[in-house]
Amino acid sequence: MNEFELIEQLIRGFGDLTEADFIETGAGDDAAVFTVPTDQQLVVSTDTLVPDVHFPAAAPGELVGYRSVAINVSDLAAMGAEPLGMTIALTVESLDGDWVERFAHGVAVAAREFKVKILGGNLARGPLNVNVTIHGVVPRGEALLRSDAQVGDDIWLTGRLGATTAYLKNPAMPQTSLEALLSQRDTCATARYFLPHPRADFAVRLREFAHGAIDISDGLASELAHLTKGSQCGASINLDRLPVWQGEKAVEVLGPDDSYELLFTANRSHRMQILEVGCATDTPVVVIGNVTSDQTVSYSLDGERVSPRPGFDHFS
Amino acid sequence: MNEFELIEQLIRGFGDLTEADFIETGAGDDAAVFTVPTDQQLVVSTDTLVPDVHFPAAAPGELVGYRSVAINVSDLAAMGAEPLGMTIALTVESLDGDWVERFAHGVAVAAREFKVKILGGNLARGPLNVNVTIHGVVPRGEALLRSDAQVGDDIWLTGRLGATTAYLKNPAMPQTSLEALLSQRDTCATARYFLPHPRADFAVRLREFAHGAIDISDGLASELAHLTKGSQCGASINLDRLPVWQGEKAVEVLGPDDSYELLFTANRSHRMQILEVGCATDTPVVVIGNVTSDQTVSYSLDGERVSPRPGFDHFS
Repeated sequence: MNEFELIEQLIRGFGDLTEADFIETGAGDDAAVFTVPTDQQLVVSTDTLVPDVHFPAAAPGELVGYRSVAINVSDLAAMGAEPLGMTIALTVESLDGDWVERFAHGVAVAAREFKVKILGGNLARGPLNVNVTIHGVVPRGEALLRSDAQVGDDIWLTGRLGATTAYLKNPAMPQTSLEALLSQRDTCATARYFLPHPRADFAVRLREFAHGAIDISDGLASELAHLTKGSQCGASINLDRLPVWQGEKAVEVLGPDDSYELLFTANRSHRMQILEVGCATDTPVVVIGNVTSDQTVSYSLDGERVSPRPGFDHFS
Repeated sequence: MNEFELIEQLIRGFGDLTEADFIETGAGDDAAVFTVPTDQQLVVSTDTLVPDVHFPAAAPGELVGYRSVAINVSDLAAMGAEPLGMTIALTVESLDGDWVERFAHGVAVAAREFKVKILGGNLARGPLNVNVTIHGVVPRGEALLRSDAQVGDDIWLTGRLGATTAYLKNPAMPQTSLEALLSQRDTCATARYFLPHPRADFAVRLREFAHGAIDISDGLASELAHLTKGSQCGASINLDRLPVWQGEKAVEVLGPDDSYELLFTANRSHRMQILEVGCATDTPVVVIGNVTSDQTVSYSLDGERVSPRPGFDHFS
């Protein structure tokens, strides 16, 4: 099968994932043509995944495909945006075997879960590299920005941290299907490490209440520093309140973590509403600290100040 | 300099290329937020460039940067779309030296030439890989599709073919600056090979007259086959009319070529208007054949039928 035949087969396989009322021309032309609702703004993010940096090189195609979509959905969630469609640019050494088809299966499973359509893509030959550029929408002016945290706000976190730390203590390639692994994502660190759980539905309902927001793809410590810098404020975090995977310690899970959870701030008056949104969308969410005016970030545990591990820098 | 510092420096260096009235939140947050004019549709294309497939691995960063933008602009031109903004996802082995800065310079030069803003990007570590996802706009329903060619239409081509064929006979890495090379792009095959000249202004004005359109990134023969298949028609091409680079032969330049010219069809009644648009935008344009009803593509030269070289398949 040549490149063009494979692309045609992949598009056929995606079926209704390439079709929607808002898509006028989808995968197959030089570009996709679609309509953005007039009262909405477009939110666009791009993320690249490289083997042995963003996933183990030996990971099955379906896990890489699912993960590629999920981490991009997480970027939209951090803006409070609703997913619309994405382009997928895949670079692979060879079309031999079924890696590309398995990758496409993982993409399709995630696309259905997060209600994001496939607008188009690109297939090139070279060292494995996956790029997804995702498009979502928010009502005009309502995007959640990392510059909007306000002094006195609660600082909230979804989910639990430490999947990466737990997985790396005992790394093994999952032997189960994508579907089986997905069912364990909230209880098994290995499943969570491979399959992030972006907080898409939660984030859309959060727009009404949250101020600043960011996803913690590079680790809580690093991302909180971005949030406080962007909002020209500080933060005080109580690590006794931080939810961590069983067997892990709060102070050790503040660095790179693959949980892709959401960190956000909101006025104290909205505590009950935010907990209700969490319940309605099956999203664990907890206050872990508050925004301060002093432009520094401090962490406490058992009443003492502690220092976190540094965040993730691909080039360090 | 670490990853985050470099990204901040690059964004500062891009200056007003990251700012526009339509951009509410640009590079620096989890995602970009922007507004699409209400009477316009969004046109999105993604293209990946890999060393020794899409450019020589030894090519200077600024040539790769310029080229990455230009070939994406060409995809928009093939839809008749006006460039709006793009995301750039760069994967590089190392931040040592100034390759990334030179790449960014090439991106900036192309972004200014084609009036496309920089919405955001991603920087990852791994084997060199460049992905650009570009966004443009067309008035609702006016995109030029590869499915809209009509039997009896003239088939038009912009520019000349054969830059790749000419360059590969005598390949050498350009030693001049990007700016010097750009000034030779329409006269020197080496310059054209490295720096495609997408027909952005021409394409926007062409919308009024053209039916089907496609850019010939994979070679005229291959792309004409896509166009006729998409429009369920055939084509008859007179190679005596094909403009080629000096010293090249028409029958040898129908395969992979880096000219990224525009192939389109239009009713014969619009010949004068199309030639006028060509003059107004400094775009050479000529009729090379016509659309037929028989679903085959034939080429003639000196009154005889000839066979073209096959198109480009990355995996063949």
